Amino acid sequence: MALAQIETVERNDAGIATAIGILRQRYGERFQTGHSIREQHAHTTSYIPAQIPDGVLFATSVEDVQDCVRVCAEQRVPVIPFGTGTSLEGHVNAPGGGISIDLSQMNRVLAVNAEDLDCTVEAGITRQELNHYLRDTGLFFPIDPGANASLGGMASTRASGTNAVRYGTMRENVLSLSAVMADGRLVRTAQRAKKTSAGYDLTRLLIGSEGTLGIITSLTVKLYGIPQAISGGVCPFPSVDAACQAVILTIQSGIPVARIEFVNTLGMKSLNSYSKLDYPEGPCLFLEFHGSDAGVKEQAELFGEIADEFGGGPFQWTTVAEERTKLWQARHDAYWAGMALRPGAKGLSTDVCVPISRLAECITETEADIAEMGLIAPIVGHVGDGNFHVLVLMDMDDPQEVEKAETFVGRLNMRAISMDGTCTGEHGIGQGKMPFLEYELGPGVDYMRAIKQALDPLGIMNPGKIIGRARN
Amino acid sequence: MALAQIETVERNDAGIATAIGILRQRYGERFQTGHSIREQHAHTTSYIPAQIPDGVLFATSVEDVQDCVRVCAEQRVPVIPFGTGTSLEGHVNAPGGGISIDLSQMNRVLAVNAEDLDCTVEAGITRQELNHYLRDTGLFFPIDPGANASLGGMASTRASGTNAVRYGTMRENVLSLSAVMADGRLVRTAQRAKKTSAGYDLTRLLIGSEGTLGIITSLTVKLYGIPQAISGGVCPFPSVDAACQAVILTIQSGIPVARIEFVNTLGMKSLNSYSKLDYPEGPCLFLEFHGSDAGVKEQAELFGEIADEFGGGPFQWTTVAEERTKLWQARHDAYWAGMALRPGAKGLSTDVCVPISRLAECITETEADIAEMGLIAPIVGHVGDGNFHVLVLMDMDDPQEVEKAETFVGRLNMRAISMDGTCTGEHGIGQGKMPFLEYELGPGVDYMRAIKQALDPLGIMNPGKIIGRARN
Repeated sequence: MALAQIETVERNDAGIATAIGILRQRYGERFQTGHSIREQHAHTTSYIPAQIPDGVLFATSVEDVQDCVRVCAEQRVPVIPFGTGTSLEGHVNAPGGGISIDLSQMNRVLAVNAEDLDCTVEAGITRQELNHYLRDTGLFFPIDPGANASLGGMASTRASGTNAVRYGTMRENVLSLSAVMADGRLVRTAQRAKKTSAGYDLTRLLIGSEGTLGIITSLTVKLYGIPQAISGGVCPFPSVDAACQAVILTIQSGIPVARIEFVNTLGMKSLNSYSKLDYPEGPCLFLEFHGSDAGVKEQAELFGEIADEFGGGPFQWTTVAEERTKLWQARHDAYWAGMALRPGAKGLSTDVCVPISRLAECITETEADIAEMGLIAPIVGHVGDGNFHVLVLMDMDDPQEVEKAETFVGRLNMRAISMDGTCTGEHGIGQGKMPFLEYELGPGVDYMRAIKQALDPLGIMNPGKIIGRARN
Repeated sequence: MALAQIETVERNDAGIATAIGILRQRYGERFQTGHSIREQHAHTTSYIPAQIPDGVLFATSVEDVQDCVRVCAEQRVPVIPFGTGTSLEGHVNAPGGGISIDLSQMNRVLAVNAEDLDCTVEAGITRQELNHYLRDTGLFFPIDPGANASLGGMASTRASGTNAVRYGTMRENVLSLSAVMADGRLVRTAQRAKKTSAGYDLTRLLIGSEGTLGIITSLTVKLYGIPQAISGGVCPFPSVDAACQAVILTIQSGIPVARIEFVNTLGMKSLNSYSKLDYPEGPCLFLEFHGSDAGVKEQAELFGEIADEFGGGPFQWTTVAEERTKLWQARHDAYWAGMALRPGAKGLSTDVCVPISRLAECITETEADIAEMGLIAPIVGHVGDGNFHVLVLMDMDDPQEVEKAETFVGRLNMRAISMDGTCTGEHGIGQGKMPFLEYELGPGVDYMRAIKQALDPLGIMNPGKIIGRARN
């Protein structure tokens, strides 16, 4: 279903040739058309086949981006923004060809406003680069989607990850952003005040728009004080349901948990095997608490009591940095550990998100589906938000297996939607989830299409993603 | 400036007459055209002159709203949604006439999902009605803009208020909403999952759109556990600057303050006089802390130390409910206390919001401007977010005084904008702030206009607000 229905975008060969000529002359070495560089800019961690752009502009300024968009608008040529290429649903593919605008060299920190707990950065900076820059300020940027993604890319897909249960997602953490729109103009969506009621929320409209409405060139994001103390640990549970009940009670009790991550039995086996660990091989929660010395102790103890109530535990936790690092390294390696379960296979990493009251049911039904279909597919999840991932390992050379994986993903998405959840909590729609958006939001997609048509009437901004080219 | 530039909207007398005929026949007593009822639906707490609608439909269902929008679309007649009429910038005025849709009878709680910490309500329910309904669940809805507004209205203006520093604004607290769009179709903007990356953020687009894109008929909002303990108190400071520095350090220190409210010297005098109190008559902060018994004690003590550092205090705080109620009643009465400073005057309540690093400067310059212009205008503010209000008391029969107030408001807005702030942190643009939106967001307003045109091509949805009727 997902793989089969990727939208086609018509190629405009003449326009592309003209645009390439103009950009080559204007940018010299900063504009590349060699095959391997173009291939790198379509090659994502996605299972979706690469569709390579016709040229790559390495932008170093807002003006470069504006100029490139104007040239492409004139020639009716697609532009596809590129950060680090770590997105998972084919966001950087070029189904109709066109120009990839690589923003990775636009990675400066433009301002740190410590008193306001915010900073303004260029879109190409990665979250690790930003946190490295901030290391002496006592502040940090918490959002961590796993990959060392660029902030512009994270905003474009409305990314979140392990810390979102406490600190929110990109939706809550961007105060303002600047973007080059389809007409080549630069718009700053908001001033730097923490709140505003001034007009339509253009900031939130661009966040999650995956480059289909504008190309984000800079962002003002919230920062947080590095917590005085951190505690964390792993807690085994007798069942998926017990683990999920513990999550619900933890959130309901108002424990300000910073991370609460689920790994299922197969996931735990893969972590142990990949990282040479000896964690219990059943459903587990990985936790982290931020606060004062007394606070993180209290939070960990309260969680231990909750776990005990549902037959889980013992909850072994620590405040020692090295031990915590080891634990979270294992969790962050879940993707690679999962891939190692079946060497040579391609990984289809998909995500859904449901109200947490439905989480146990959704994961349990999904595990049953995996077993019934004979798939190899570990599950991990940011369960404090009701969000989980399945990594389906498949042999791309076996059409039957690919079809089976597609069927599984389709059922998973429809299951989440039927539980009042979403077909994607954090990966985005891209190309892979387009068939499900209509099921999820019905007439809402028509209004999205109208907005797309209004802001990108030529349909040049990352066409073939989310809702595809606006239809007249 | 503000008063003079209210946008005119052309009247369509023939269409209005036809629509009235149809609605009268269809709704009988539920459709009213009597002058006093129509006047009530334009009469807001605003200083802006009333522009009354031609009829009022008391909707009791989504279908009523859809039907009324379809009739009005057919006849090219404006529709203006009405909740409680407590907005401050002329949002419910009918500059081109038309039909006011009163949603106050759509006030049912549709579902409470305690495990998910959310509930779904009809748009007409007020925040007090909702919290009364929730009283036995241990949960509450924290957003408190002062007035007992409807949740639909609060979403429409992106309201916030005293608790926003801890719990966020309507922007952060609405998971999903249903709205009747200009074509009469009902759209549900999102499922009930806590996070989603599924397409454009229609939820956030409608929040703050002031009825100009759609009429909100129901919302799913986040709930929170009622805190185990609450502490609070009032703390005097030697200067505005000292108070603001204490606010910055409190936020920077990560103290999860639930409310941190500023009242200036004139404001404190008005509170004392109105409520027969004996608070210090200088710049003060009103504070509230939520948490465990130990937590709220720790927070209050930490704040006391911070206040002391800036020459403030003594910070007298209490956990006794009656004393806290008295304190917050006084703060909530600030509007009426201010009005009592000049009996017979009209109050122009305006708000701006700046980065908190600029707050002391912005308030101090504004106080100087008030003194220089000889205005009577107390200041209160949700200063944890950098948001403050000025209540300008003016004699509406004195054109010079009205002009002076307009000049003052214009300077205040431009001052906030020049400090990277916004001309409205929580009241919205409505009619009163329209001239300032372009100064604040420049080309951003063009994209808002394009969105308005795309979603409301006939320009019938609350015309003459935010960006006015879409221009072709």
